[in-house]
Order: sequence, then C-alpha cells, then structure tokens
Amino acid sequence: MNIDAIRAAAQRLQGHVRQTPLLSSPALDAMAGRRVLIKAECLQHTGSFKARGGWSALSALTPQARARGVIAYSSGNHAQGVARAAAAMGADCVIVMPADAPQVKIANTRALGAEVVLYDRATDDRDAIGGAIATARGLTLIKPFDDAMVIAGQGTVGLEIAAQAAGMGITAAEVLVPTGGGGLSSGTALALEADAPAMRVRTVEPSGFDDARRSLASGQIVKNPAMTGSICDAILTPAPGHLTFPLLARLAGPGLAVSDDEALQAMALAFSHLRVVMEPGGAVALAAALFRADELAGDTVIAVASGGNVDRDVFTRALSLYA
Amino acid sequence: MNIDAIRAAAQRLQGHVRQTPLLSSPALDAMAGRRVLIKAECLQHTGSFKARGGWSALSALTPQARARGVIAYSSGNHAQGVARAAAAMGADCVIVMPADAPQVKIANTRALGAEVVLYDRATDDRDAIGGAIATARGLTLIKPFDDAMVIAGQGTVGLEIAAQAAGMGITAAEVLVPTGGGGLSSGTALALEADAPAMRVRTVEPSGFDDARRSLASGQIVKNPAMTGSICDAILTPAPGHLTFPLLARLAGPGLAVSDDEALQAMALAFSHLRVVMEPGGAVALAAALFRADELAGDTVIAVASGGNVDRDVFTRALSLYA
Repeated sequence: MNIDAIRAAAQRLQGHVRQTPLLSSPALDAMAGRRVLIKAECLQHTGSFKARGGWSALSALTPQARARGVIAYSSGNHAQGVARAAAAMGADCVIVMPADAPQVKIANTRALGAEVVLYDRATDDRDAIGGAIATARGLTLIKPFDDAMVIAGQGTVGLEIAAQAAGMGITAAEVLVPTGGGGLSSGTALALEADAPAMRVRTVEPSGFDDARRSLASGQIVKNPAMTGSICDAILTPAPGHLTFPLLARLAGPGLAVSDDEALQAMALAFSHLRVVMEPGGAVALAAALFRADELAGDTVIAVASGGNVDRDVFTRALSLYA
Repeated sequence: MNIDAIRAAAQRLQGHVRQTPLLSSPALDAMAGRRVLIKAECLQHTGSFKARGGWSALSALTPQARARGVIAYSSGNHAQGVARAAAAMGADCVIVMPADAPQVKIANTRALGAEVVLYDRATDDRDAIGGAIATARGLTLIKPFDDAMVIAGQGTVGLEIAAQAAGMGITAAEVLVPTGGGGLSSGTALALEADAPAMRVRTVEPSGFDDARRSLASGQIVKNPAMTGSICDAILTPAPGHLTFPLLARLAGPGLAVSDDEALQAMALAFSHLRVVMEPGGAVALAAALFRADELAGDTVIAVASGGNVDRDVFTRALSLYA
C-alpha cells in the first residue's frame, strides 16, 4: 500500500467522483482561534467520501469478478458508494446493513439498485454474515476499509487537500479526519506524506468509541468495548484495520475524540455558517477543530466533513439545540 | 451593460469569491424527468451570490469613494455581500434592512462589521431611507440590483455555468434563476449569450410575487401588488429594474412561478439528496425544475440555488413537512 496506488486510483476515479470544495467561514475561524478549512465530502456523490473507495475497488476488479457481482457490509455510506459504482458498471450488488442504520441510508442504497440484507448491530457479526453470502453466491466482498483498493480510493481526498491547500498558499496544517476503521484517515495520511509532507493527519472519533486514539496511544490495535451508544453511526467500527493501523501508527498524530453533543453542535454551525448538511459522524472533525483547539498545533486546521447522510429527526435535533 | 463588464468583474473577483460547484443527484433527475444540475451559490461566501455583486461594486469604486464609505438596502443577502467586501477593503458600511428579515441575516450582517438600520417592509420606502442616509453622511449607495457593477458581478455566475457545463459536454440547457429585481438573472443571461448561446435563462419567482414573469409577458415593467406574504424573503422586490428588465426582455424565456410549499419541498429534497442548505428564495429554481417540468424544454436544466441563509425554524418546517 503506497502512494502509487492512490495516484492510480485517482486516474480511475477521474470524471466519476467530484473534487469537493474546501469551505470556510470567518465565524468558524473566530470560534476555533485559527483558520479552519472544511473539505466538504458531504457534497460527494452519494453524500460521502465512500463513493471514492467504492469506485476504486470495483474499477480494480477483473471483468470476470465484476460480472459475478459484489457484496459489502456497511452502516450505509460504504453501501451507497459500492452500490453506485456497481450500478454504473452493471454489476450485481448485495449490501449487508445494520437494521438501525439511518432510514435515509437504507432507502438510498435500495434506490441505487442494491439488494439490502439487514442485521442486528449489537448481536450479529457482519463479517460472518457478509462472508457467508459472498461464498454462497460467488460475490466479491468489498470490505469497508481494510482493503488496499478502498484505502487507495479514499486517499484521493488527501491528494485533493494537498493540491487545493497549495493553491491557497497553505502547505502546513493539521488534517482532522473522522475515523471508523481508518480507511479515509490512513489513505489521506499516505497522500499527504507524498504531496504535503508538512501536513499531519489526526484521527477524530466519538468519545467512548475511540479505538483508533487508544490504539495509537498504545501502539497496538485495541477494540471498542461496545458497538452501539453513539449517534455517530458512520464511524462506529470495532477496531482499526490490519492494513490501516500500521499506516496511522507511522503517519498520524495523537488521536482526538469528541462527544455526541459536540458533533451535533458542529452540525448546527455547519448549517448556519457553511450551508452544508453533515451527519454526526461526518461532523466530528469540525467539532474537534472548534472544541479541541488546545490539542491542535499551528495556524491552520483542515477538517474533513466525511458525510452528510442524516435522518431528519437527528438533524432537527441538532438545530433545535444549537442553531 | 455588456459582456465586457462581466469579464472585467470576473477579473476583480478572482480569489475573492468561490467558484461554486454544479451538483446533481440521480433521485432529482428522476423526479424532474431530465438531467438537473444545481449551481450551488448557497456555498458562496456569505451564503449567497450577492458576495459577487457586492465585491464587484466596491472594487469598482474610486479609492476616494471607498474611503467615505458605502450604504446598501437589503433583506439580508445583498447586505452581507456588501458588508463582506467593505470589511475586506476597510470601508465603512451602513445597511438598511427590513425588521422582519431572517435573524440569521441580521446577525451575520452585524458580525461582518456593518452598521444595521432596520425599517418596516410593509409601510416604509427603503429607497427613500437609504437615499437620505447616503446624502447625510456622504456614503455611496450600492443598489441591490439596478446597478451595472452589481449586475456585472452577478453575471460571473453565468460565466461559471457556461464553463462548468461545457466541461461536462453540456452546451444547451434552460437555466432557472431565482429572481427578485433581476440582477442575477439579467447578468447570467448576458454571460450565457456570450459563452453558451444555446442556453436560455428562465426567471423563477414566488407565486403572487411574479413581477418579472408578468413584466416579461406584457413587455413592460409591472409591479407586485404587495411586498409581504411569501417566505421567499430574498426575492421579494417591487418590480424588475430599469437596467435589468430590458436585458431580461431581450434574452430570457417566459417566467416561471412556484408556491411557498414547493420551495419548502425543494429545500427538503436538497437536504436529502444534495446535502446543501437552501433558503426558500434560493430554492425556487430547483422547485421549478422539479415541479414545472411541462413548462421546460430540453433534456438538461440548470437551477441556480441562489442562497442558503435560512432561520432554523423555517428549515425545520421544510424538513418536518417534506423530508
């Protein structure tokens, strides 16, 4: 897994994903006490950066494998990314999703033509379920993060950050990345190592589900004690991946964590000052930029807004509490 | 007023406004029955395209006039556009705003350093109030739409649409533009005449406040019967301007109108499918793309989302009704 894989993915993604904007607001700069740039991947096709990894993985399959079809397990964003790529390439697609995933994610995945299989996040093992279906039907399993082609696709976010920031005269920054299994953060870290070596990735997670932070601190992969209990559904994963963790251990700074309430507050501020819709898990990096200023260095921070697929009721709650 | 003024404005705006993205969603295409591209000016600095006209007008003043300061009357978006440019250029700025403008617009205008003077939209004449203060204090009045430099700034939206669409292989489309006094629609029409002559502007207004549509139909400027009664505050103006109307009469197709409920519905769909925040007046073009399909021609429509400054309660109402 190296920078060449990311550059190759960028070639395959050309014309199929959006170069999302770097947004900013004087009000957010003032709150953070430094310049804050927001990489708005919530504006990506399917509403999250997962459209990159999905396209990267499917476009790297052999035509034979694509013709047999693919399967993915996902709380919703990876699902949509894989389903979109599969639909565009004419491949069958099965998605294994937790039954408590946001309705908007389940509905949008089905709308993209995928066959959705629901499971219980608290008691079932999605890897086992996905693996069994894949074997029975000859489908290729597209893992959500611990897959080189998926990491390569997500890493194109880092290539864009480096180029867009350089265009603004910015070469040094802490780059805050919402982190589940670490596909986006490790891919971004690899891309920045090559194209913006004075930038450094910092993982951001929900408090209590900070497996990446604790793994980085201890130098080995540690698991979350639970898999439910945060509204940040997009980034609740058991532990960093076996491919992603070594990259993060080598390249990322200390991990950060924010509360669900801080994520909701960041969502409300993004509504008022950026006019973009962030989902809770997608808002944790902005939350860290605003509410963990003393754990950050430098005069510029870049926060990735990784997704915007949020149910109405959760978004309305954020606005009623904090807008 | 011609294309050269718009190209000159584009030069002055370089690096000071965003090139906003053209967004899309398969779900919206399916609803509209044709391809729909959304020019997301709600992601512009200050949350609306008015940052363009404000910057264009102030950057075209003599240094002496800038040093004396500027004044503008505005329901909120022009206010913020002018206030931002004034702050960046170190000019004093007075803004005359209706007392019933969205709180977010009043607050953001003040946060940009402007002195805000409130008036009653139903009974007061904002032109008279603005003119009196301008005379008394030696300020230059920056009109909201009937000003060549303002129209030139807004017209840069048209230059970007032409270039971005051409990059996607699209040269023909109906371009739907939320229309108050016609600064954005007339400037965009002029830009498209030069750079995308197979595209045509269509004005979109709230039903009952469709002065542009009725003026276009009758060939002369006609006024709205009232100035309150729609949630589309950003585009409630008495009548098309004396500079803007002749341009629209020459270049625009028949006007369109949508209901407040249709604007709310478009806001909810933009939340779910585009993850952007639109204000009611900024959502009327998307509403027309979705709900006036039989009044549109061709296989592609480009809807300008002109602004995203909306109070929480109005946005929450849109979501509770339609998301």
